[in-house]
Amino acid sequence: MTQRLTYGMIGGGTGAFIGEVHRRAVSLDDRATLVAGALSSTPEKSKQSAHLLGLAPDRSYGRYEELFEKESQREDRVDFVSVVTPNDTHYPIAKMALEHGFHVVLDKPATHTSEQAAELAELARAKDLMCCVTYNYTGYPMVRQARAMVRGGELGNIRKVYAEYHQGWLAGDLEASGQKQASWRVDPKRAGLGGALGDIGTHAENLVSFVAGLDIESLHASLSSFVPGRALDDDASVMMRFANGGHGVLTASQVCIGEGNGLSLRIHGDKGSLWWNQERPDELRISMLDRNPETYTRGGPGLHEDAQISSRIPQGHPEGYLEAFGNIYKGAIDTIIAKRHGTELSRMAKLVPTIEDGERGVRFVERCVESAKKNAQVSWA
Amino acid sequence: MTQRLTYGMIGGGTGAFIGEVHRRAVSLDDRATLVAGALSSTPEKSKQSAHLLGLAPDRSYGRYEELFEKESQREDRVDFVSVVTPNDTHYPIAKMALEHGFHVVLDKPATHTSEQAAELAELARAKDLMCCVTYNYTGYPMVRQARAMVRGGELGNIRKVYAEYHQGWLAGDLEASGQKQASWRVDPKRAGLGGALGDIGTHAENLVSFVAGLDIESLHASLSSFVPGRALDDDASVMMRFANGGHGVLTASQVCIGEGNGLSLRIHGDKGSLWWNQERPDELRISMLDRNPETYTRGGPGLHEDAQISSRIPQGHPEGYLEAFGNIYKGAIDTIIAKRHGTELSRMAKLVPTIEDGERGVRFVERCVESAKKNAQVSWA
Amino acid sequence: MTQRLTYGMIGGGTGAFIGEVHRRAVSLDDRATLVAGALSSTPEKSKQSAHLLGLAPDRSYGRYEELFEKESQREDRVDFVSVVTPNDTHYPIAKMALEHGFHVVLDKPATHTSEQAAELAELARAKDLMCCVTYNYTGYPMVRQARAMVRGGELGNIRKVYAEYHQGWLAGDLEASGQKQASWRVDPKRAGLGGALGDIGTHAENLVSFVAGLDIESLHASLSSFVPGRALDDDASVMMRFANGGHGVLTASQVCIGEGNGLSLRIHGDKGSLWWNQERPDELRISMLDRNPETYTRGGPGLHEDAQISSRIPQGHPEGYLEAFGNIYKGAIDTIIAKRHGTELSRMAKLVPTIEDGERGVRFVERCVESAKKNAQVSWA
Amino acid sequence: MTQRLTYGMIGGGTGAFIGEVHRRAVSLDDRATLVAGALSSTPEKSKQSAHLLGLAPDRSYGRYEELFEKESQREDRVDFVSVVTPNDTHYPIAKMALEHGFHVVLDKPATHTSEQAAELAELARAKDLMCCVTYNYTGYPMVRQARAMVRGGELGNIRKVYAEYHQGWLAGDLEASGQKQASWRVDPKRAGLGGALGDIGTHAENLVSFVAGLDIESLHASLSSFVPGRALDDDASVMMRFANGGHGVLTASQVCIGEGNGLSLRIHGDKGSLWWNQERPDELRISMLDRNPETYTRGGPGLHEDAQISSRIPQGHPEGYLEAFGNIYKGAIDTIIAKRHGTELSRMAKLVPTIEDGERGVRFVERCVESAKKNAQVSWA
Repeated sequence: MTQRLTYGMIGGGTGAFIGEVHRRAVSLDDRATLVAGALSSTPEKSKQSAHLLGLAPDRSYGRYEELFEKESQREDRVDFVSVVTPNDTHYPIAKMALEHGFHVVLDKPATHTSEQAAELAELARAKDLMCCVTYNYTGYPMVRQARAMVRGGELGNIRKVYAEYHQGWLAGDLEASGQKQASWRVDPKRAGLGGALGDIGTHAENLVSFVAGLDIESLHASLSSFVPGRALDDDASVMMRFANGGHGVLTASQVCIGEGNGLSLRIHGDKGSLWWNQERPDELRISMLDRNPETYTRGGPGLHEDAQISSRIPQGHPEGYLEAFGNIYKGAIDTIIAKRHGTELSRMAKLVPTIEDGERGVRFVERCVESAKKNAQVSWA
Repeated sequence: MTQRLTYGMIGGGTGAFIGEVHRRAVSLDDRATLVAGALSSTPEKSKQSAHLLGLAPDRSYGRYEELFEKESQREDRVDFVSVVTPNDTHYPIAKMALEHGFHVVLDKPATHTSEQAAELAELARAKDLMCCVTYNYTGYPMVRQARAMVRGGELGNIRKVYAEYHQGWLAGDLEASGQKQASWRVDPKRAGLGGALGDIGTHAENLVSFVAGLDIESLHASLSSFVPGRALDDDASVMMRFANGGHGVLTASQVCIGEGNGLSLRIHGDKGSLWWNQERPDELRISMLDRNPETYTRGGPGLHEDAQISSRIPQGHPEGYLEAFGNIYKGAIDTIIAKRHGTELSRMAKLVPTIEDGERGVRFVERCVESAKKNAQVSWA
Repeated sequence: MTQRLTYGMIGGGTGAFIGEVHRRAVSLDDRATLVAGALSSTPEKSKQSAHLLGLAPDRSYGRYEELFEKESQREDRVDFVSVVTPNDTHYPIAKMALEHGFHVVLDKPATHTSEQAAELAELARAKDLMCCVTYNYTGYPMVRQARAMVRGGELGNIRKVYAEYHQGWLAGDLEASGQKQASWRVDPKRAGLGGALGDIGTHAENLVSFVAGLDIESLHASLSSFVPGRALDDDASVMMRFANGGHGVLTASQVCIGEGNGLSLRIHGDKGSLWWNQERPDELRISMLDRNPETYTRGGPGLHEDAQISSRIPQGHPEGYLEAFGNIYKGAIDTIIAKRHGTELSRMAKLVPTIEDGERGVRFVERCVESAKKNAQVSWA
Repeated sequence: MTQRLTYGMIGGGTGAFIGEVHRRAVSLDDRATLVAGALSSTPEKSKQSAHLLGLAPDRSYGRYEELFEKESQREDRVDFVSVVTPNDTHYPIAKMALEHGFHVVLDKPATHTSEQAAELAELARAKDLMCCVTYNYTGYPMVRQARAMVRGGELGNIRKVYAEYHQGWLAGDLEASGQKQASWRVDPKRAGLGGALGDIGTHAENLVSFVAGLDIESLHASLSSFVPGRALDDDASVMMRFANGGHGVLTASQVCIGEGNGLSLRIHGDKGSLWWNQERPDELRISMLDRNPETYTRGGPGLHEDAQISSRIPQGHPEGYLEAFGNIYKGAIDTIIAKRHGTELSRMAKLVPTIEDGERGVRFVERCVESAKKNAQVSWA
């Protein structure tokens, strides 16, 4: 019988988008059960949400501090916690979780400052705990195929990278309507330094890093706030020079009317190129020098093991966002079990984005904001 | 707190494709728990599979008859059973389930003969039990949008329908290798009268019926068995005349190399047209007379309530096959709860394909086989 | 210096669609000059049109009989004539042209009856004159690539063919408005036996024959006239059995709202498959058993010589309908020059559809109409 | 009878790509005849090419100076000249042409320096001669539709523009092979300051300007030469701030393996967005706030007159590169005729890119090169 874990959730109460996503992503493979939670910003709402989710009253906590204190004293304490609160609270919650000995699944972007992320990383290493960050787009099988091909040298030396994350849902002044998702994302106190940059630009940055493993040496960013009164950027463009001599262009925008969740990646090497688009995630287009382009598909021929193990159903039966998200949890659960038994990490576990990836993401935002303020190129280090 | 159900599964042991799909589809929304099973063809294998799935030993049954007898005597008896065995056993299992008072979720095609399906339908009605059939493609939000638009008259009187279900996985002699999925599908004793026709043609027929609600008046079918030695059709083409005067072309094939799971629907009315393709399920293309074509998307503007309630995550975050399958279970669970409480069926429940739909699908296969044998048009009635 | 020819045109006066297409197709490569014409249905209109096109008054003929008589007596007589009149007049015009010793480019469908086409074919052979039919879609480079691959055996034995030609422009009662293109197409006296079948179905039939070279052994057709009062079919579906055991489905419709000029071809063999779509003519998708699909593009790698010589500009610079049409004329001009000098036909010339192809197309319409009347399968022979 | 013009060509001898494109573009509409030429770099080759094209010996000039001198003394002098030589010779040739009173069609980029272009512009204005630049992509009907919609305010205030021109044909060291097209493009003496930037980046810049009419206020460019030994950029990325507050990202690269002629434009306003891609030129995707996206197509409903007059054949019959190029010539010929008769410019004529557009393009290259050298933002003025 497959080993099952239990987990607790901080945030993700009624009406929260990402908390439900996390729960469904876990449910999909049914390897962990939600048994505890501090789900909302007030004890009342937390308990109400916990009741709706069927949590036992004694594990329906009013505040996260309570959860950590009480759970850490239970014999059947949760195996890990998922932190799905707004950005500004990630750091104190994750810190307390780690200090109490819990493995942590942290929503992105990890923290407000790169120092905070670095501190969490150190704490996790010191306590030999997992602290992973749900850069969920890395969970797509064809993203993992792309990674295997680029890192295996199939495209040669990488010259040019285009990463885009374009949405349109903040094209109007949605925050004025009090829409919950919009409100905190445009508030510097809660969202952090970056608007679109932090919310989605970091996904694009992470995708480049995950797939191509390139180090940014310097960058020049240009940020705009197109909707009047918006304090943070709702549109960002970044040119990057990589350590290998390659060049990248990353754009993230939330004011592109007509774009749903337009995350895409194009990588051009001196031997070949790839194209991937989150809205058609089961396809990966590959074009090698002097050959016709081929389309790799999830479940199809010629896939690397990392792509194969990340797929649940056959070719042509679409998988989507939740399935990719579930792969992060699969790897996280594998990691926890491996740590418990002192065994080697599975392939699935090795693919999980870590707090170190989260730290790099936050630093990316910091560097972009610095560059935009100076209106000049800045170096990464 | 949301009401949770329990269920048992017949078939779906280790290595079975569709059983796991059903379980994941249920897990996704986490409204029912698998607690009993008769999962394989032998008692030993059944218990092994049950152990791997974490079922309690006393509910890990060796044979389906045992499951029905014992479960029907328990106070905490399962609320429903999912029947995911090869086609030839659907009828006796479903019959026994209904006779023991269990609601039934039946994999398609419902039965071997339309008489069997009619009998199950009557039995279910007599006992006021749900007996639904997992024509899972009807679960896609944009298929439901298509249905709402066609049935609401937006495309006008329907003139022409193209339904295709093209796969390539049986292009070679896969059954010779003993591949489990291939073997039973090409065996008339297990699969029934139809090969590709029964396995996937019935999905296409159901999609036409679900979306457009057209009655077939007569049809002319042409069946081929392209792979040498294959007893059943691996390729079928059917021309249909509908009661409203419209005409349809339905093709189903499993020898189309390069096709993954190519189910598509095109409907042309005298006011407008629609296009839908299972491999890009989140999109529905609509073209009205003298206007530019529009693309409706899951989560996007202008959707009918039936489409809205069938979606879990925002526009641009792809949903897929499992999510659509999960919608069938959502409706089935709603149905069971409504029957229990004597309340009205929810919208979700009303969309669930029934055993009557299953009966029509089996009759479709029967009529096609008859037409192909006679090499002539046959009438439906 | 490249050899230039002169030609005359019958039909194609002011307001005619296809005449202008023919002229542009010739102009594109600038190897023949229009110098004579009998362009319209009345002498007055003919001369007016000729004036607008800059023809010399003495070669601006009022009637086609006059053109043939006078041109045949000139020393600088035209090298060939293009016949672009409505269908009903093709036979007498082409016959007289051949009798007067002129090479003929004939618009499709060639004639009203297959006997007429056979007679023209015999006449052309007897006089060693070219009589080609502008099945213009065979001029696309990627169609020629498809032909080379299928005929070269790359896809193996052909099992299934899908040919579609779907348009929407006759979805309403356009003929009631007196629109010129619509009016003659729906008039049995002018269009012949077939409506959509003759106008566009023959293009689809020809495409199958050109690419795959399969002989139809028997067929079953279903014809509809959806727009009230229309005497000819505006929608046709045909199932065909080929001599090699393969099966085909051909559909042609002019009432599919939202379809522009939707001619497409899919061919599935036991080694691989191809997909081609006239609205994206520069691409040919190929999928071989157990391999990822490849996209061949005009001007790209791996093309057969027949595709290479049919392209004028580099990959990525779209070519279209006129360029494909021009390739028919290139081959026709090559043919005439080869006949004049008694030299071998060029590759380009060998690809030009002949009156024998036209004869087969007309026979296809005849057989389909017969089958639809009988509502039964008919054999080809 | 439609008025016909005559023209001469400088450059465009045997083996030249763009010269043949210009000739075909003219032929397509058959409103001008090539009657004179100085076609190659040496008198011998020039005359050989002229012979192959069927030019009269007395108008087959060895050098361009000779052409201008002799033609200007003929009564039947050519109406205009097309200059299709490598970039470095554009300026002296165009200058001499204008001085001798000839209208000029100039290939892009207009000249080596913006001062040269400004001088030509002034000369043309002084002599009331047309000096247009073949930014041929502006000839596509759907580009003109885009322009009409953006300039008509339908997308609202423009916030973000993405313009890309990605090719792959210089990914390897093609110039080492002596390939003619590659050799001059990578040679600063012949190509000018910009490599990919000048060759294709200027097309992208022009497309932005033509469609959106935005003025660049400042820009930051990053240039790379990825192929070792290449003196000019083969990859360029530019961030631009427009005078209206909008932001743009323009990338041009010739080392993107797998890209054919990937010119695309995306424009996002505060009311709606558009997408256009040169490789599918007949489509324009429009998405308005809170509405489903619509696809406009050449020949389809809802088109602006500028798009309608730029199309030759019906919807669904693809037009391509040559047809778009032909539209530039149509406008140029209209311009010349209007100037001759002192009449108003036609719509077609008003759409033709002028030497002033060419000047802006050269300035764009100059500013980008300056910014890249300084590795800093530069202002336009």
